[in-house]
Amino acid sequence: MQTAFSFQLLAADGAARRGEISTPRGKIRTPAFMPVGTAATVKAMFLDSVRAAGTDIVLANTYHLMLRPGAERIAALGGLHKFMGWPHPILTDSGGYQVMSLAELRKVGEAGVTFRSHLDGEMFELSPERAVEIQNLLGADIAMQLDECLKLPASEAEVERSMRLSLRWAERSKRAFASAPAGRALFGIVQGGVTPKLRAESARALVQIGFDGYAIGGLAVGEPQEVMLATVEETMLELPADRPRYLMGVGEPDDILAAVARGIDMFDCVLPTRAGRHALAYTRNGKVNLRNARHADDPRPLDEACQCPAARDYSRAYLHHLVKANEMLGGMLLTWANVAYYQELMHGIREAIAARRFDDFAAATCANWTKEPR
Amino acid sequence: MQTAFSFQLLAADGAARRGEISTPRGKIRTPAFMPVGTAATVKAMFLDSVRAAGTDIVLANTYHLMLRPGAERIAALGGLHKFMGWPHPILTDSGGYQVMSLAELRKVGEAGVTFRSHLDGEMFELSPERAVEIQNLLGADIAMQLDECLKLPASEAEVERSMRLSLRWAERSKRAFASAPAGRALFGIVQGGVTPKLRAESARALVQIGFDGYAIGGLAVGEPQEVMLATVEETMLELPADRPRYLMGVGEPDDILAAVARGIDMFDCVLPTRAGRHALAYTRNGKVNLRNARHADDPRPLDEACQCPAARDYSRAYLHHLVKANEMLGGMLLTWANVAYYQELMHGIREAIAARRFDDFAAATCANWTKEPR
Repeated sequence: MQTAFSFQLLAADGAARRGEISTPRGKIRTPAFMPVGTAATVKAMFLDSVRAAGTDIVLANTYHLMLRPGAERIAALGGLHKFMGWPHPILTDSGGYQVMSLAELRKVGEAGVTFRSHLDGEMFELSPERAVEIQNLLGADIAMQLDECLKLPASEAEVERSMRLSLRWAERSKRAFASAPAGRALFGIVQGGVTPKLRAESARALVQIGFDGYAIGGLAVGEPQEVMLATVEETMLELPADRPRYLMGVGEPDDILAAVARGIDMFDCVLPTRAGRHALAYTRNGKVNLRNARHADDPRPLDEACQCPAARDYSRAYLHHLVKANEMLGGMLLTWANVAYYQELMHGIREAIAARRFDDFAAATCANWTKEPR
Repeated sequence: MQTAFSFQLLAADGAARRGEISTPRGKIRTPAFMPVGTAATVKAMFLDSVRAAGTDIVLANTYHLMLRPGAERIAALGGLHKFMGWPHPILTDSGGYQVMSLAELRKVGEAGVTFRSHLDGEMFELSPERAVEIQNLLGADIAMQLDECLKLPASEAEVERSMRLSLRWAERSKRAFASAPAGRALFGIVQGGVTPKLRAESARALVQIGFDGYAIGGLAVGEPQEVMLATVEETMLELPADRPRYLMGVGEPDDILAAVARGIDMFDCVLPTRAGRHALAYTRNGKVNLRNARHADDPRPLDEACQCPAARDYSRAYLHHLVKANEMLGGMLLTWANVAYYQELMHGIREAIAARRFDDFAAATCANWTKEPR
C-alpha cells in the first residue's frame, strides 16, 4: 500500500487542471466534488450510493463531531472511516466556519476560540493545536488548519487583523501536525476577504510555511459571483501549481465550472444534499422543483439518460407525491439524484479537460440548464 | 404467465400451516408478513431492500392513496405497481380502518361512509362499490371488502349491528368485484368484536358469500393478547382450510408466532417500520432501544449473524449517534434492519412448519428475545 500523500497533474486546458491526489486510502480524481457528511453521514444517503455515484472523498465537520459523539469516542471506536463505514478518503474541516455560524458566546483570542455548543450549551475550546488533534483522532486523510471565519460585512482593518491571526494559527497548525501519521495531509487556508493585497499576503505567507494543499476560505458567503471569481483569480497567482487548490463551500454547478476554469481542483458544498431534502433536483437540463404541481401527472423520470436509479427509475409524478406527502423516500431519492448529478458533472469536467475542450463543455453544460423551468 | 389466483397448502404442523399463494404478479410464501407501504412507499426504505429482505407482498392504504395522489391519477400513470416501482404482489386495504382512525366528520350509513380528509378538509364518500373501484384502479392483487371498523369500547348490540352492516357491504363488494381483471382476489373481513357467536356468524356468512381469502378485522386494537388469540381460535373454526387467512394489523413478533400456531397465514403491521423511525430495533435477541446511552461506545452491530447489512455492518455506537443527531440514516438503517428481522422470522416459521418443529422453533425464538435488555 502506498503511504505518501501526493498530487499529480495529468492534463491542463487553459487554467483548468485535471489531476489526481494519491492517499493511503485511495485516489481522488480532480477536479473533485466532496459531498458533505457533516455528522458522519451524508444526509439521507447510504454511502454505497455515494460511492457508486463517483465520489472519491467526502467531507466531515470537526465542529459537529467534536460536540457529538466526540473525537476521543470516535478514535476509541477505530476512527471516523470505520465509524461511518467509508473506507475511502475523508477531508475534515477545522471547525472554524461552524464555530462562526452555529456556536453561541463565541470568544476569539490569540490562543484560539471558546464557544458554547449549539446542542446543549456546554463550553468548548478550540485552538489550532486542538483542531489538528481532533482531526488526527478522527483519522482525516486531509486535515484543515484552524482559521478565523469573519462575520461579514467587516472593515478592511478587521479583515486584515483576522487574516494575520489565521496565519499565526496556520503556523501553529503546521507544527502540531508534524506528529501526524505518515500519508496524512494538512491544508492551509487563504483568507483576506475580497481585498486582493490581503489575499496575496495570506497566500504567500502560507506557501512560505508550506502545506500539502491550499484552500481558499471566506468566500461563497453571499458576495456576487464575479467578486468571488475575481478573488479566486488573484489568489491563484500566488499558489504553487504542484499542490491541490480547494475552494471551500462552493457551490452551484455554474460556480464550479467557473472556478475550475480558474484552476480550482476541489470543492465541497451542502447544496446537492440540502436541496435534495427540500424537493429541488439538479439535472443535466437544469433545476427541477418537485414541489410544483405541474409534476403531479408527469410520467417522465428526472433524466432517463442518467446512470443513477433515483434520476432514471422514478416518475416525476411519484417524486412529487413523495414530496407532498413528506415521505422520507422523497429526500432519499432526490439527494441521491443530486449527488449523482454533481459527480456526473465532475466526471464531464475531468474528461473535457483531458480532451482539451473544457470551454466547449462548460458552454454546452450551461446552455442545457436552461431547458427545464424550475 | 399464470393468470389465476390460487392458494396451495404445502405443509402443516398442528394448526400452523405452510403454504403458497399464486398470483399473476408472483408467489407469496405463507405465513407471510406484509410490510406497510401506506402512501405508496414503505417509509424510509428503498423497495429493493424490502424485496431483498424476503418480502413477497406489501400492503398499501386505500384511504391515503384515494386522498393523495388519487386513485384515478395512479391509474392514469399505469397503476400502483408502476407508480411505486414494486412489480410484485400488493394487497390494499379498503380504507375502512383509516376512515375510523384518521378522518374527521365521519358519517356511516347503509350506503357507505362520508368523511372529511385529515389532509385538507375535503369531503369524500366511500361505499363498498367505490372501495372496490379504487382498489381496481390501483391494480391491487388482493383487494379487501369495505368494512366498518368500530371505535371501542362498544356495546354488544352495537358490535352486532356493525358486523351485520359489514356483511351487507361484503355482499356488495363481491358483486362489484365481479368485473375485476382475471387473477385478482377479493378477501372478506370477519368482524364481531370479541363475542364468539358474532364472530362465528360473521365468518359463516362470509364463507356463504364466498371470497378468495378471509381476514380477521377489528382485533389488535388494544385488547389483551389472550383475548385476541381466543377470538382468532374461535373464528378459525368457521373458516375453510383451502383459503388464506389474514390477521389484520398484527403485530409484535410474539403475536405472530401465537397466531401462526392457530392457523393464520398472513400478517401486516406498521411496527417494524414505525419502530425503526423511533430508534427501536427488532433483533433475534430482542428489542434494542438505540436511544439508550449504554450504546454510545458499543462497537458491536445489532446482529453480526444477520444477512441484512443494516443489522450487520454498523456499530450500535454509530446507530446511537445517528438517532441522537436526528439523522435520517438512523431511521433508514433501523427500518431496514427491522423489516429484515421480521422476514427472517417468517422464513424461520415457514421452515419450522415444513420440518414439523414449529413449537420448538417458537419456544426457542421467544427464549432468545430475553437476551437483550431494551
